[in-house]
Amino acid sequence: MKIALAQINMHIGNFAGNLQKMLEYTAGAKAKGVDIICFPELATVGYPPRDFLEFDDFIELAEASIAELAKAAHGIAIIVGSPSRNPVPEGKDLYNSAYFLAEGNIQFVQHKTLLPTYDIFDEYRYFEPASEWQVLEYKGKRIALTVCEDIWNVGNENPLYKVCPLDQMMPQKPDFVINVSASPFAYDHMDERIHVLGANVARYGMPMFYVNHVGAQTEILFDGGSLVMSPDGKVFDELPYFEEVMKIYDLEEVVKGGRQVEQTKEKMPLIHDALVMGLRDYFGKLGFRKTILGLSGGIDSAVVAVLAARALGEDNVRVILMPSQYSSDHSVNDARELAENLGVQYDIITIEDIYNSYDNTLKPHFWGTTFNIAEENLQARIRGMLLMAFSNKFGPILLNTSNKSEMAVGYGTLYGDMCGGLSVIGDVYKTEVFELARYMNKDGEVIPENIITKPPSAELRPNQKDSDSLPEYDILDPVLYHYIEQQKSPQDIIEMGYDEKLVRRILRLVNINEFKRYQTAPVLRVSSKAFGMGRRMPIVGKYLA
Amino acid sequence: MKIALAQINMHIGNFAGNLQKMLEYTAGAKAKGVDIICFPELATVGYPPRDFLEFDDFIELAEASIAELAKAAHGIAIIVGSPSRNPVPEGKDLYNSAYFLAEGNIQFVQHKTLLPTYDIFDEYRYFEPASEWQVLEYKGKRIALTVCEDIWNVGNENPLYKVCPLDQMMPQKPDFVINVSASPFAYDHMDERIHVLGANVARYGMPMFYVNHVGAQTEILFDGGSLVMSPDGKVFDELPYFEEVMKIYDLEEVVKGGRQVEQTKEKMPLIHDALVMGLRDYFGKLGFRKTILGLSGGIDSAVVAVLAARALGEDNVRVILMPSQYSSDHSVNDARELAENLGVQYDIITIEDIYNSYDNTLKPHFWGTTFNIAEENLQARIRGMLLMAFSNKFGPILLNTSNKSEMAVGYGTLYGDMCGGLSVIGDVYKTEVFELARYMNKDGEVIPENIITKPPSAELRPNQKDSDSLPEYDILDPVLYHYIEQQKSPQDIIEMGYDEKLVRRILRLVNINEFKRYQTAPVLRVSSKAFGMGRRMPIVGKYLA
Repeated sequence: MKIALAQINMHIGNFAGNLQKMLEYTAGAKAKGVDIICFPELATVGYPPRDFLEFDDFIELAEASIAELAKAAHGIAIIVGSPSRNPVPEGKDLYNSAYFLAEGNIQFVQHKTLLPTYDIFDEYRYFEPASEWQVLEYKGKRIALTVCEDIWNVGNENPLYKVCPLDQMMPQKPDFVINVSASPFAYDHMDERIHVLGANVARYGMPMFYVNHVGAQTEILFDGGSLVMSPDGKVFDELPYFEEVMKIYDLEEVVKGGRQVEQTKEKMPLIHDALVMGLRDYFGKLGFRKTILGLSGGIDSAVVAVLAARALGEDNVRVILMPSQYSSDHSVNDARELAENLGVQYDIITIEDIYNSYDNTLKPHFWGTTFNIAEENLQARIRGMLLMAFSNKFGPILLNTSNKSEMAVGYGTLYGDMCGGLSVIGDVYKTEVFELARYMNKDGEVIPENIITKPPSAELRPNQKDSDSLPEYDILDPVLYHYIEQQKSPQDIIEMGYDEKLVRRILRLVNINEFKRYQTAPVLRVSSKAFGMGRRMPIVGKYLA
Repeated sequence: MKIALAQINMHIGNFAGNLQKMLEYTAGAKAKGVDIICFPELATVGYPPRDFLEFDDFIELAEASIAELAKAAHGIAIIVGSPSRNPVPEGKDLYNSAYFLAEGNIQFVQHKTLLPTYDIFDEYRYFEPASEWQVLEYKGKRIALTVCEDIWNVGNENPLYKVCPLDQMMPQKPDFVINVSASPFAYDHMDERIHVLGANVARYGMPMFYVNHVGAQTEILFDGGSLVMSPDGKVFDELPYFEEVMKIYDLEEVVKGGRQVEQTKEKMPLIHDALVMGLRDYFGKLGFRKTILGLSGGIDSAVVAVLAARALGEDNVRVILMPSQYSSDHSVNDARELAENLGVQYDIITIEDIYNSYDNTLKPHFWGTTFNIAEENLQARIRGMLLMAFSNKFGPILLNTSNKSEMAVGYGTLYGDMCGGLSVIGDVYKTEVFELARYMNKDGEVIPENIITKPPSAELRPNQKDSDSLPEYDILDPVLYHYIEQQKSPQDIIEMGYDEKLVRRILRLVNINEFKRYQTAPVLRVSSKAFGMGRRMPIVGKYLA
C-alpha cells in the first residue's frame, strides 16, 4: 500500500485555493499509484480559522470543499481534515474531523477527541470532543485515524486529558495510525513531536504516519516536519521544515523499518527559516509584495532588514534612514553599509525640520518643562509617521522591528517604533537577536560587524544607552524567560540567584506594559510562549504591578 | 435567616484591596446580624484573571486571601468565589469555586460545573468542571451553591451543556439557591438574567439569591443588577446597576414573596452609565486621574468628551482642537462651544506648520504623486502625535474616539485617530452615537445641536463627507449588526432586502480591516458582540475578503 503525506500550506478561508491545491496533489499522487493521500488538520479551511467557525456560511463552504474532494476520490482515497456538524443539539455545534473519502464518497469520519484549549489554542470554544472511535478499513488494511492532539495523551499520561483515543481503538486491531495535524512551530518543539510519536509506537507497536501543516497564518507558524515512524521506533522519514512537499511511502518498507532519517534541528537556523517563512506568507497570503522599514543602525532593524530581503527579495525591500541630532555618525554609516550589502533601496531623511516644527508648535504649551520622554517619543513617532506616509503613498507594508526583550519591558514608543503591520522579531529576545545576526553572517558579512558589537542605544537623547534604563540583556533576558516562558514566581527567580529588587522591577515592567503590547502588531511566534494570542493578560490588573 | 448580597467592584490581582473590601463588608454585615454574606465569582482575584491563573504564585495569593477571610468568618458565614486547586493530576489544574467559610474555617467548597468558553469567556482554558454536587447545611437550612453559568442550563435545555447542576442537587432537598456570578454587561442582557432566574424558580420552586460583580475590568463591564427571586417567580429585589452596594434580605420575607422590584432598563441610559463606569474604573484602577482627547467638532469626540467629563470630572479632562486647512470654521466653533459647556480646559493648535514640514521633507520622495490617503492620514497622525506629546509631557491618558461603525469598516487612521489607551465608544454604532448624544442633551443642551445635525465628515480634504466613501449609516449599521452581532451570511443579509453589491462590499471591508482592529485600544463592551477579546478573527484570511 502506498501512502502519500501532503504537507501543504493552507490559507485560512481561501476555500477555492485550498481545494485547488489538494486536487492537484491528489491528481499527482494518483498518477504515481498512491492508495491514500493524507492532508493536514482542517485543511479545507486553514488552521486556525478562529471565529469564522461561528458562521454557518463558512461551514457550508467547507462542506462544499469536501464534496468536491470526494468527487476526485476515484482510484485513490483521500484523508483530509475539515469541520463537521454535530448532528445533535447537545454540545458544541461542530466537530474537528478527519474525513476519509473514497469511491466518490465520504466513507468515514473520525472526530477529534482531545481539544487543545491553552496557549494559542481555543478548540473547545468551537468543537465538541469525539465520544466514539472507529477504525476504518481500506484495501484490507485497518487504519486508526486521529487528529493532531489525539496522539498526545499516550496511555493517558497527559494530565490535561482523560481519554486516550488510540487506547479506545486498539481492540479493533488497527494495522497503522494516521494522524492529521496542525502543530505550530516553536524552536524546541520538533524533538517533542518525535518523542510523542515514539511513545505511541512503543505502546502500540505499529507504524505511524503524521502529516503536519506547513506555512504561516499571520503570527502562527507551522514548520511541517511531517513524520513516518516504523514499528521499531525509528524515524523512517521526517519531511523538511518550512517547505510544502508531498512524499510517498510504501507501507511494507515502513513496517520493515531500520531507517533513521531526521532533519537537523539547530535553534538559530530554525528561527531564521521560520521568520523568513512567516514574512513570506504574511505578504503572499495578503497579496502584498513590497515592504518598508526604518534602519536605525541598530541590530534589531538590521536583522529584520536581512530577513525581509531573504523572504521577499531585495527588490521588494525599501529602507529609510532617519537620523536626528542625537544619531551618531556611525549609525547612519552602519545602516547605509547594510543597505548596500543587501542591495535594497535606501533613502536618508533627516527628521530635524519636522521635529523643530513640533517643538515650535508645542513650545507655548510646554513652556517651563524640560526635555523628557515626550521629546524622545516625538522622534520615534516622526519616524513611524514618515514610514507610514511611504506605506500609504506607495503601498509597501511597514515592518515592526521590536524585539521580545523590549516588548516585554515596554521599552518602545507606541505609535513610534512600535508601528508596523507585522512584528518580525517580537518573539526573539535581544540576546537571541545577536545570535541571529551572527548566524546571518556565517557565510560572509551581511550585517556590518559594528552593528553587532556596539552597545545598544535608542539614540533619542545625547549618549543614550539601553543600559542606562534597563539591566544588561544577559541578565534581563533570562529573568524574562523564566517569567514568560516558564511562568515562575518572583520568589523562584530570586532563588536562582538574581537580585531581588531587579527581579521585582523587571516583572513589574512586564505587567504594567500590557497596554502597549495590546496595541502591537501580531508577533511571529517562534518560542513556546509568545506575546499575542497565546498569552492573555489583563491590562487593568495589579498582580506584581 | 438574614442573607447579604455584596455586589462589589473587584480589581484583578489586587489581592490586598479585594480582601480589605470584603473584610469591611463582612464586618458591616455582621454588625447588622447577617447570617451569610455573599460575594461574587472569583472575588478574591477579580474577573477575568485570564492567564494570571497559570502562575502558581497567583493561586497561592488567592488561597491566602481565603485563609484571611475564613479568620473573619466568626458569627457570620461568608460565601465567596475563588480558584481552588484540582487535587488530582487528571484534568485542568484549577477549579472555579464557591467557598463557604464559617467558624474560622473553610467548611465547604462547591466547584463550578458549566464553564463558558465562547465570546469573551475562556474558562475551559483554566478550569476543570465539577463532577460532584453537594448541598451545604447551615443553621438548619440547606443551601444549593452555584457559580454563575451553573444556573444557565435549566433542565438541560441549553444545548451547550450536558449537565444541570441544580438537577443534580435537588435530591438533597435544598431550601434555596445562592449563585455567585461575574456576568458581564450588555445592553440587552438584564432581561435574559431575570428570565433565567425565573425559569430556575419555576422548575425548583425555591428562592434564589444571585450576586453579581459590578465594575469594569479594562474592556469588560459588569453592571451588578444582583437579584433576589421569590418562589412565586417575582423579582423580590434587583440591585442597582453600576453601583457597588450591599443589601440584606430576610429569608422568610423572600419566601413570602409578592413583591416585584425591578430597575428600569432603557438602552441609552444603560449604555451611557456603563461607559461612564468603564471610564471611571479604567482610570481609577490604573491609578490615573486625568485624560486628554482631541475635539474635532464631530459627534464622536463630542460624546466621548461628555462621558469623560461625567466619569472623571471636568477638571480632569483636557481637550485639544487641532484644525487644519480643511477644517470648517463651524467645526472649531462647535468644539469650542462644547468645551465651554463642559467647563473643560481646551487649547487650539493648528497643525498646518507641522503638516507643511512633513510636506517639505517628503516632497523630493513624493514628487509626481497626487494628494491621496497618505496626506489625509498625515493630518490624522499629526493630531495623534500632538495628543500623545501632551500625554507624555503631563501624564493624561489619551482616549480613543472611534465608533463601532468606523472600526468595523476600517474608516480610521492607524496611529492617528485610532490612537488612545481606551476605546470609549468602539462598541457603539454611529447611529447609536447620535442617540446617545440626544440622550445626553435631554436635560439641556450639552452637545451643541449643530454637532448632532451636520453631516459626518473626517475633514481631511476639501468638502469631504463620510458618505462619499461609505454608505449612509442607517444602511451601514444594520448590515454590520446582522453580520457582527447576528453572524448572518451575506445571503441572509441580502435576502433581508439590502443591495447585494453593497452587502458584499461592507462585509469585505469588515474582514480586510482586521489588521487595524488588532492594533486598536481595548473597547468598552456594551453589546453582545464587541470587537476585542470576544471576537477572534484571523488577519491573514480570505473569507469574504
